[in-house]
Amino acid sequence: MTETDRLRDRFRRIAVLDEAVGMLHWDAAAVMPDGGADARAEQLATLRELAHGLLVAPETADLLDAAAATDGGDPAPLALMRRRWRRATAVPVDLVAALSRARSRCEAAWRSARKADDFAAVQPAFGALLDLVREEAEALGSALSLAPYDALLDGYEPGLTAADCTATFDRLEGFLPDLLGRALDVQATRPEPLPPAGPFPVDRQAAVARELMAAVGFDFRHGRLDTSAHPFCGGTPDDVRITTRYDEDDFLKALMGVLHETGHALYERGLPAALRHQPAGEARGMAVHESQSLIVEMQACRSRAFTSWMAPRVRAAFGGDGPAWAAENIHRLVTRVSRGLIRVDSNEIAYPLHIILRFRLERALLAGDLTPGDLPGAWNDGMAALLGVRPADDRDGCLQDIHWYDGAFGYFPTYTFGALMAAQLFDAAMAATPALPERLAAGDFTPLTAWLGGHVHAHGALLSWDEILRRATGRPLDVDLFRRHLERRYLAD
Amino acid sequence: MTETDRLRDRFRRIAVLDEAVGMLHWDAAAVMPDGGADARAEQLATLRELAHGLLVAPETADLLDAAAATDGGDPAPLALMRRRWRRATAVPVDLVAALSRARSRCEAAWRSARKADDFAAVQPAFGALLDLVREEAEALGSALSLAPYDALLDGYEPGLTAADCTATFDRLEGFLPDLLGRALDVQATRPEPLPPAGPFPVDRQAAVARELMAAVGFDFRHGRLDTSAHPFCGGTPDDVRITTRYDEDDFLKALMGVLHETGHALYERGLPAALRHQPAGEARGMAVHESQSLIVEMQACRSRAFTSWMAPRVRAAFGGDGPAWAAENIHRLVTRVSRGLIRVDSNEIAYPLHIILRFRLERALLAGDLTPGDLPGAWNDGMAALLGVRPADDRDGCLQDIHWYDGAFGYFPTYTFGALMAAQLFDAAMAATPALPERLAAGDFTPLTAWLGGHVHAHGALLSWDEILRRATGRPLDVDLFRRHLERRYLAD
Repeated sequence: MTETDRLRDRFRRIAVLDEAVGMLHWDAAAVMPDGGADARAEQLATLRELAHGLLVAPETADLLDAAAATDGGDPAPLALMRRRWRRATAVPVDLVAALSRARSRCEAAWRSARKADDFAAVQPAFGALLDLVREEAEALGSALSLAPYDALLDGYEPGLTAADCTATFDRLEGFLPDLLGRALDVQATRPEPLPPAGPFPVDRQAAVARELMAAVGFDFRHGRLDTSAHPFCGGTPDDVRITTRYDEDDFLKALMGVLHETGHALYERGLPAALRHQPAGEARGMAVHESQSLIVEMQACRSRAFTSWMAPRVRAAFGGDGPAWAAENIHRLVTRVSRGLIRVDSNEIAYPLHIILRFRLERALLAGDLTPGDLPGAWNDGMAALLGVRPADDRDGCLQDIHWYDGAFGYFPTYTFGALMAAQLFDAAMAATPALPERLAAGDFTPLTAWLGGHVHAHGALLSWDEILRRATGRPLDVDLFRRHLERRYLAD
Repeated sequence: MTETDRLRDRFRRIAVLDEAVGMLHWDAAAVMPDGGADARAEQLATLRELAHGLLVAPETADLLDAAAATDGGDPAPLALMRRRWRRATAVPVDLVAALSRARSRCEAAWRSARKADDFAAVQPAFGALLDLVREEAEALGSALSLAPYDALLDGYEPGLTAADCTATFDRLEGFLPDLLGRALDVQATRPEPLPPAGPFPVDRQAAVARELMAAVGFDFRHGRLDTSAHPFCGGTPDDVRITTRYDEDDFLKALMGVLHETGHALYERGLPAALRHQPAGEARGMAVHESQSLIVEMQACRSRAFTSWMAPRVRAAFGGDGPAWAAENIHRLVTRVSRGLIRVDSNEIAYPLHIILRFRLERALLAGDLTPGDLPGAWNDGMAALLGVRPADDRDGCLQDIHWYDGAFGYFPTYTFGALMAAQLFDAAMAATPALPERLAAGDFTPLTAWLGGHVHAHGALLSWDEILRRATGRPLDVDLFRRHLERRYLAD
């Protein structure tokens, strides 16, 4: 074995441990009995420690140096290995352990604080965690030659910077609040959509969800759909496990959620098999991942073309009858907008405004310009300014999301970069296949998924998010495309 | 951390890797889509390699020596660690790899040979595997100071020897063929049992199986029942996963199979939590394990006491009516005997005869006294002599079981030692709780499982199979107890 082979084998073992973690995580969420939780936590911690140990071991550094000196081939896979090694070794062991404890403590405090609507109850743990995240960001930034916040962003979407966010979010802020108001005005002139009358049995919801997944291109020989409290796409590229939860009164919640996860699943499944178990063969980052879920859910499946195909199928699945099941009504239901307080219940127009708020607040928190104690007020002021609504309590305000209380800073922007990429990629796929809407109206995703497979999935982690976008669409991120998409759907359509 | 602590932590990591293997194995059998098989095989192989690597690393030997020099406490846990290390290091790496390849090759050849009823097709691969197993047995024997066959037995039930097997099996051979004939005669004087008329929907079979599992003491907060092609008890002590398969025409197959696996499950679940993830806290061996499944299935659940409780419950579950559902008829169905050719479809009386045949043949094969080419004839002669029936083909003869073709020699005897231990342990539990039959007739397993918990489960691997038996019953293995159990059930009852 050459040094490069040994290096690849080491990363293969790390990746296989990560796969085992993925499967056990799915198991815990989907099928594990409650009593297995403690043992499972120990299994996951131990497997992660073993993977981390393989990565930070001195042999890894030696092999990286040796491979760099001898490898005459493509330097990108090696750079991705070194990037991972650098991030893993940048943060001192004591800080990793302290962060892990602080995250567990803060997350637990957040759960009860949120339930009790009592921000003060989580504030001390949150302040302590924030201090450690700041240290982590500095350590990562120094190892990666990045500003601290950029080093955090880079952990979720490599190459994405605060400057990218600021420029993009400022442009979005320039038109989204006005567009939201106009969309609400247009919506008010149209008939109120009728909710189909339930209940909708879970097994029928699951059956129709599987039918739609298959239409989108999910390969059930390489994956499953199951139930969990918090929907996700997990497992491995060769065995993608997606989950959802069912509301017996509203089948569209699970259905649109499943279609979203199916977009994630297609990306995982489409990653280059030849690079399996190597950093170069993994999904690029969370923004690119979100672009793949949103291109399926938001761009394709909430289009009038697709809902016209979907409506008779859901009507048949539930034995529905009457105007609530008409395609136009279903389309109105899945494109409804509102000024809600809650990000996860939000809509395409309002969602980026929720993200802009979080981006600004988390930067201010990390920079020390905003103290934890001032967060609730700043949150509510920001909501009023951006969305025109003010939370009545912190449960519907700064306590609504788990991310910060779990130590995840720099994650939120990837949602909106994903949404913008999705609009731009869909536009390019339409240019390549003008018949795309007709195909979607026939339930045929083949042209779209083939295009995504070649232009996004097949690159693995070898291109950055903006390189993927430039090569696939011929230009950098184009906020106007997103604006035009929203105007078409919510003002003109 | 002391050396002993570091040693424990090393074995803890090994055990957690084994637990991950256990869960992924369950997943592959119960829920994994077919397309995940290749990736899963690589995950399992890599996790096993990592566990093996931790065990055979030089640090483990150093820590074992250091702990032995310093530890003033109970030497048994340390001895169990050393035993595992010794077995793992006894076989040269090249031989381990050659065995792994030869097993895969032979098992694949066996699958098609069995289907085609063509022993000659597997004979070369089987001969090659046999040579390697012989080498393995010699290497293990030399490291453990055991005769080669004893070293193989020791891998399944530590401390069990060929001398134990020979003595016990000779005694069994002395009365079982005659007893089988008499039981068949008695059976012939009684009414033919009526098979309840199906079909029996799978979901109802699963529901009644869960009801019976709960009655036996299976804790669904720490385990699940699922479906797989080959029933097994897997998972971990804190999350025991048992599986079964369903026959829509015969609910008793799945039901009795589930009760058998529930016995295994109670043992795993009852292992000492304080020793979790340490060799001392694991199940003793396969004979003890089988005794726990058979005490539940054979001793308790095929008793007239329990079937009288079970019969109305299965009748209600399936909405059954008529004499086929009478308790006495159900009891006759679950205690039916025959001279079958197939071990797994066998019965309590005939089963040990199948095992005796295999024990003698596998010893002769390993000793070189029987060549692979002579196996089919020797098998058929042995069946005629022991069971009074001669297979018409090798599919129902020496090709019926996977074990040898997968390299498992020394495993078969544990089935019969388990059966004998079960009879003896049940007898002692009856002595301790004379009301046991009444309790079983009320569906109450508490006295039995509490007794087993204290006398078997709680010992983990700290006592040998015969020490467990002596302490629990006051004497060594007693073949007569097994004989009396059979006579009572099949001649007198």
